[in-house]
Amino acid sequence: MKKYRHKVIVHWGDTDPARIVFYPNYFSWFDQSTRMYFESVGLEWTEFMYKYGIIGLPIVEARSKFMRPSLFRDEIIVESVIAKWHSKMFEVGHTVYNRGEICVEGSELRAWATPHPEDPKRFKAGIIPREVIEAFE
Amino acid sequence: MKKYRHKVIVHWGDTDPARIVFYPNYFSWFDQSTRMYFESVGLEWTEFMYKYGIIGLPIVEARSKFMRPSLFRDEIIVESVIAKWHSKMFEVGHTVYNRGEICVEGSELRAWATPHPEDPKRFKAGIIPREVIEAFE
Amino acid sequence: MKKYRHKVIVHWGDTDPARIVFYPNYFSWFDQSTRMYFESVGLEWTEFMYKYGIIGLPIVEARSKFMRPSLFRDEIIVESVIAKWHSKMFEVGHTVYNRGEICVEGSELRAWATPHPEDPKRFKAGIIPREVIEAFE
Amino acid sequence: MKKYRHKVIVHWGDTDPARIVFYPNYFSWFDQSTRMYFESVGLEWTEFMYKYGIIGLPIVEARSKFMRPSLFRDEIIVESVIAKWHSKMFEVGHTVYNRGEICVEGSELRAWATPHPEDPKRFKAGIIPREVIEAFE
Repeated sequence: MKKYRHKVIVHWGDTDPARIVFYPNYFSWFDQSTRMYFESVGLEWTEFMYKYGIIGLPIVEARSKFMRPSLFRDEIIVESVIAKWHSKMFEVGHTVYNRGEICVEGSELRAWATPHPEDPKRFKAGIIPREVIEAFE
Repeated sequence: MKKYRHKVIVHWGDTDPARIVFYPNYFSWFDQSTRMYFESVGLEWTEFMYKYGIIGLPIVEARSKFMRPSLFRDEIIVESVIAKWHSKMFEVGHTVYNRGEICVEGSELRAWATPHPEDPKRFKAGIIPREVIEAFE
Repeated sequence: MKKYRHKVIVHWGDTDPARIVFYPNYFSWFDQSTRMYFESVGLEWTEFMYKYGIIGLPIVEARSKFMRPSLFRDEIIVESVIAKWHSKMFEVGHTVYNRGEICVEGSELRAWATPHPEDPKRFKAGIIPREVIEAFE
Repeated sequence: MKKYRHKVIVHWGDTDPARIVFYPNYFSWFDQSTRMYFESVGLEWTEFMYKYGIIGLPIVEARSKFMRPSLFRDEIIVESVIAKWHSKMFEVGHTVYNRGEICVEGSELRAWATPHPEDPKRFKAGIIPREVIEAFE
């Protein structure tokens, strides 16, 4: 399985009075990395949504364990990899490294979202095409 | 001129290792207050855009002076008032109070944006209707 | 068990091009609600940390399920309640309601963090005092 | 005068329902660029504060003009340069380029902040050392 390594610099505004990263920021970095992971395997974001008739890859579940803090000016790596393909959803695992040590482990479960036939405010999960899955192999 | 007072609680994630509000957050609070100021004078956001055929009130300029810091758990007031009506733009002044003292003063210049006749990625500033101006008096 | 209901207005800047809340914001709101939940039962944040010799309630795990999106201008409620007391950690459950419907369910696992005897960059989880637990009953 | 070019990728969470960057983010990027600008001329952030006995470079004023929007997935450059040295403050100019065109112009006025002799919650602006100024030449 292909992986993606997203380099993030921890900036002043990402940290809190405890002098460490404010935890919701890790989920923003997960979201960033998932998008760039798709692009890294040739699934250019806007283009593949248009091609497959989907309206997005909305988040269904997100979780994270925080083992070690990261500080202002640290340069960290979010390493992302598909953890599991379901028929209509997929899970991306994210491991955050700081100076070679794992400091955070998280995951996102996302849906392959097609337009809902009746309600424009909702989506309907569709079957993930075989060639999308193969792009990550 | 009518004013709007937007109450904001300073949360942990709004502050930085200096234990004070990270300054870009003040602009988010200005943006919030401008929207709610319009609603407070009866210009319900989605409805008035539809009514007047505008696509938004995009920011043209923003500025702020920072006189005193605010801290985690402080409850501050952003007081907003129209500072000046131009024909196609308007300026909203924002004064932030903490325990009765002025701590930040800022302003936003925003355009009355109608769809651009040729380019969907741009907007064309339109004349602000008299009745919109009167709603604030 | 006492609960806390944290009212949140969804602002423009909290939403994304899909016109819904960008998901990491829910974790910021969970963090806000946990702090205010403690204060609501009489555990004034700074004071109780000083009193019990702790340096914070750092996040250990966070998770969330996203069932329905919330939109710009929605007013949502984050209802927080202690889900489980462990000896040195506790879990806060957060349920987000929008117009009476559950739209998000999440939780935070946090540690009762005392200073580490040897390493100022780390913390040592301590036993949660009985009277802290009782304050929530 | 030396300049610094801070490359920023516009991520999904940086944009709003108008599909463009939510404006307060530009100020976060200015703040990031100022810090990295100092490091780029050899003024390692923590070290130079310690060396010169300052407690930070707090923001005094910030302003920005927004000429063209930037979109999700755009890669922009924040070009930063000292615009003016005052005896106890300095102004950093920030010009944001997107595909070679200027889209945003802003500035930050910051103080050279030493500890206040009487009040730990305030700072006292000090004289900026000659060698700090020379580091940018």
